[in-house]
This record gives sequence, C-alpha cells and structure tokens, in this order.
Amino acid sequence: MNSINKIYLNIAQIQEIVSNDLKKVNSIIIENIGNEVPMISELSSHILASGGKRIRPMITLLTSKLCNYKGDNHLHLAACIEFIHTATLLHDDVIDESKLRRGVATANDIFGNKTSVLVGDFLFSRSFELMVANGSKRILEVLSSASSTIAKGEVLQLTTVNDCNTSRETYMRIITSKTASLFAAASEISGILAEKENNVKNALSTYGEKLGIAFQLTDDALDYIGSENLGKEIGDDFKEGKITLPVIICIEKSDNEEKIFWKKTIEDLNQTDLDLGKALALIKKYNAIEETISLANQFASEAIDALGTFPHSEAKLALESLAQIAVNRTK
Amino acid sequence: MNSINKIYLNIAQIQEIVSNDLKKVNSIIIENIGNEVPMISELSSHILASGGKRIRPMITLLTSKLCNYKGDNHLHLAACIEFIHTATLLHDDVIDESKLRRGVATANDIFGNKTSVLVGDFLFSRSFELMVANGSKRILEVLSSASSTIAKGEVLQLTTVNDCNTSRETYMRIITSKTASLFAAASEISGILAEKENNVKNALSTYGEKLGIAFQLTDDALDYIGSENLGKEIGDDFKEGKITLPVIICIEKSDNEEKIFWKKTIEDLNQTDLDLGKALALIKKYNAIEETISLANQFASEAIDALGTFPHSEAKLALESLAQIAVNRTK
Repeated sequence: MNSINKIYLNIAQIQEIVSNDLKKVNSIIIENIGNEVPMISELSSHILASGGKRIRPMITLLTSKLCNYKGDNHLHLAACIEFIHTATLLHDDVIDESKLRRGVATANDIFGNKTSVLVGDFLFSRSFELMVANGSKRILEVLSSASSTIAKGEVLQLTTVNDCNTSRETYMRIITSKTASLFAAASEISGILAEKENNVKNALSTYGEKLGIAFQLTDDALDYIGSENLGKEIGDDFKEGKITLPVIICIEKSDNEEKIFWKKTIEDLNQTDLDLGKALALIKKYNAIEETISLANQFASEAIDALGTFPHSEAKLALESLAQIAVNRTK
Repeated sequence: MNSINKIYLNIAQIQEIVSNDLKKVNSIIIENIGNEVPMISELSSHILASGGKRIRPMITLLTSKLCNYKGDNHLHLAACIEFIHTATLLHDDVIDESKLRRGVATANDIFGNKTSVLVGDFLFSRSFELMVANGSKRILEVLSSASSTIAKGEVLQLTTVNDCNTSRETYMRIITSKTASLFAAASEISGILAEKENNVKNALSTYGEKLGIAFQLTDDALDYIGSENLGKEIGDDFKEGKITLPVIICIEKSDNEEKIFWKKTIEDLNQTDLDLGKALALIKKYNAIEETISLANQFASEAIDALGTFPHSEAKLALESLAQIAVNRTK
C-alpha cells in the first residue's frame, strides 16, 4: 500500500468534502420514501435515520467528483444505492433474526418480520424507479445486475450456513456477490455518468469491488472482536452457525477434536454458554483474526492501487482514505 | 357487459392462441433462473412449475397480439411480469404463513421462510434485469412504478390486518395496488411496444386494472366458498384476520352482537373451532359473497368495455374471455 508519508482523512473529513451533496441525497431519500403509507415512512425513517455512515452513496459522490461529473444524476443514483442497501439490510435482519444493528433495535424487532420484508420490497422497487428516472441504459444494466448478484450471494450464503465444509473460494464468492457488487456498482456508475473510457470505468469498478471485499472481511473479523461500540453482540455469526473466514481458517487448521467442536457448534448448532469462549480461544490459537484482517488490508491496498491512474485530488485522497477506514475501524 | 350472443373461450382455448409464445416465455423463464446457485433453481422451479395459469404473462402476449406488435420484446417482458408476480407470491406466502398454494405445499413450507425471502429478492431483481434488457425507458417507468405500487399495497394490507374499521375505500386501494397494478402494467406495455397512441395505451391500462380488480374480488370471495379444487383451505383470510370485502360488507351491516363477534375473531384473533362456521353464516345472512361477486362482474364488464375501440379479433375475444373467466372460476 502506498501509505508511506500519506496522511489519510477520517470519516468526518471525508463526509465534509461531499457534505452538500450528502444533504441533497438525504433529501432525495426522504422525498422518495413518501408519506402515502405511514408504516413505510415510519420503518424507513427508523432504519435510514439510525446512524448509517452512508458509505455506499459516498462512494458514488466521491467517484463522481473524481470524474469531474457536472450533472446531478449522481445524487439520485446515490440515493438509489442507499435504498438497495437498506432493502438488503432489512431482509438480512429478518434472515439473521437480529435484534440489534448499529446499537439500535432492528426494524424487524420493532416492526415485525412481515413489515420488514414488505418495506424492504418497497425500498427495493423504489430504488428501481429512481434509477430508471436518472440512469442511462448502461447504468440500469450495472445496477440491476448488481441487485441480482446481491440476491444470488445472499442465497448462496444461506445454503452454506451450518456447513463446515464451506471453502474459502465459496466464502469469497459470497462476500464478493452480497457486499462487493454494490460497492463496485456505486463506484462504476460515476464513470458512466461522466462518460469516461472503459479503462477508467473498469478501474472504478475494481476500486469498489476490492473495497467491498475489504469491508466485509473486516466486518466478519469484527464479529469476533466486537466491542460495545460495535452496537451488536459479539459472536452473532457463531451463534447463527454462519461460516465466515475466521471460522474457515480455524477449521482448516483444526485437529480432530477441534473438528468435532466446530461440527457440534456450527453444523448441529448444539451450543452451550461456554462454546463461544472456546471458539474465540481457537480463533486466537490460529491467528484467524490477524489473517482475516491481513487479507482485508491486502484488498484495501488493491482498491487504492486501482485508483492509480487518477491524478491526485481531494476526492482521490478521500477514496483512498475510505479504503483505510474500511479495514481500520472498530465498529 | 356485451355478452349477449357472445361465445367466450375457455382457458385452454385462450392458451392455445398464444401457445407458441407461451412456450418461448417458459424457456426465457427457465433460462433466467439459471443454475449458478442450486437453491435458487430448485425453489424457483418449484413455484414456477407448480401449475400457475400464467394469467399475467398471457395478458402481455394477448395485448401484444391485439396491437399487432411484430417484435419479440413482449416475450421477455411477459417473463419479467411473471418473475415480479412470483417474487410477490413468495413473499406473500411468508407473510401469510401459508402452507398451500394451488394445492401444492408452498415454497416457504418446503424451503423455509429465509430462502423464500431471498429467492423472492432474486426473482425480483432478475425481473429488472429482464426489463432493462428488453424495455424502453417508458416501459421501465411503467414496470418499476407497478412494482413499488405493489409493495405499497402489500404494506397497506398488512397495516389493516385485524382492523375491523378498514373501509371499502381502503380495501379497494389495497387490491388496486397489490393486484391490479401489475395486470394494468402487463397490458399497457404492449401498447408502448407497438407504439400506439395514448388513448390506446390508456385503454389497455384500464382493461388490465379493471381485470385485476375483478380477479382479486373473486379471489377474496372464493376464500369463503373454496372447494377442494381451490387447493387452499377455506377461510384462510378469516383465520389470519385479513379484512376483505365479504367481511367488510358483514361488518357494515352487523348488529351489536355481531360487531362483538367480528372484533373478537378478526381484531383479537380470538377464534374457536366454531367461529369460521359462524362467520360463514353471517356472510350468507348478508349476501356478502353475492355482493362481492356482483362487484367483480361489474369490474369485469368495465374491463371488456375498455377494449371497445379495438376491432374484433381472436386476441380481443381471448382478452374478453379472460375477464369472464376471472369472475366465473371456482379456483
């Protein structure tokens, strides 16, 4: 990573760079939730106001700035990206039966699973209305393809739950699909809006994809080193029997007795109060967090490298910093 | 209704008229489900192969024929319509906790709610990929708007469950949104494909909307007169506390004692084994089924009238017949 002597920005500094745009995106989000159906506005406001960092729309805003895009379609498309993300969050929390997200009660916990499923559908279809109104055919292709890739990744993840034989390759395919594809699309669409050449659009897509992978790897590591700040309980993935890289690493290296432990806890979901502690001890024994974070750093570095062709600018520094933040955060 | 001396077609005869197109639509459906993620193909095949009549895609095929459309985009858009419909079915069955659909175990019963939610998301996003690849901007507007209208209708329906004060107006708004909007879009897009004038496109949209309302009113009546053929249990809506027109009619006309009965069974969901029988007796007492079916007939008649400007043709007769079938079916 070209981090020598480079001073990265923190998240507040990055937000400051696109603060006017971010305000406009927030207005577009509120406007498009509407108030026709009170339950939709209540639930959407709950989740959209509950402190997300707006990482994905920020990628669109910053890459648009990087590409010197002069119109305002990027604002609507950034809102569209946040709608897709929020829809998947709502459905994810139903699937995972989560009670907390970002330290706040999840929508499904307050409003019920049924409402979460249907409001997720609403936000998802609203995202398509937004992209149709503001995107070219190519942008629609990129965004609709990203949406179906996310869904494929989510289904694949569901089929690997409780499966100790899940390979690294399958895990990487899952996180590339369910997380990185939207990051990639959020970045690439700016190149399309600004009518850049293919190599630039590819570079942006690569930046987003690598960043998304780094982000998810870090998320999956944080699930085992969660602090109170994370706003979610530690070991959620373990309790659900969800297979992420830290566990895959442990299973790869495990002796027979440990294999039996993982099978019992992850495959059979036969867990006692002491098992999370045992899992954490094994994760420590095999340096599984360090290895996961190290891989995340590698992807963050590749994300930064992908921006190599762009001349230095505030937007570029912000995008590089986002890659740093993705792997260095504690929540 | 201009039904004097008119001999309507049955569903098999209608299917025969567009049988080549229907086969192509089925191929497009199978192709677009793909086989990358086995769980997606398994579940999608289960629901898409489980005997639906393909009413909605048939509307697109028949209206395209009516408009003398000569291309093949209508085939892909018909598949897209069926994908949207199937996605909402999957999510509906999760919401309603249904065990049977069309006499076959529901996907959520076999594959679990989680898979149904996520495969629904996949089919929904795939539908957008299909429309982006095959539709003009105007078609995308119509279909994405229909999708978000469906979701709004579904959420509104959820908020009226267990609410005995639900008005006819709210009920009509719900069924127009959740059901008729897709019928309207399925019909209107043919006019757009064939580049017809606005009055023709409006007529097609009206046909679809009225047909959809007639269809849903009949569905809601059939829930209380279901036969074994219906493939679903009688009184499902009652058991869920779902407010449909037959119940609204009864509540409007009820005396105090009956009001208490509806409040207990629908609002408080406090039901004994005898309560469905009591509900059916009240529905009979107030002719609520007859009134519902009569309203359905009125909408079917308006659907047929909307096609008035088209000259007689096989496709027109088929579309008129669909409106007849929508209200005269027993399942």
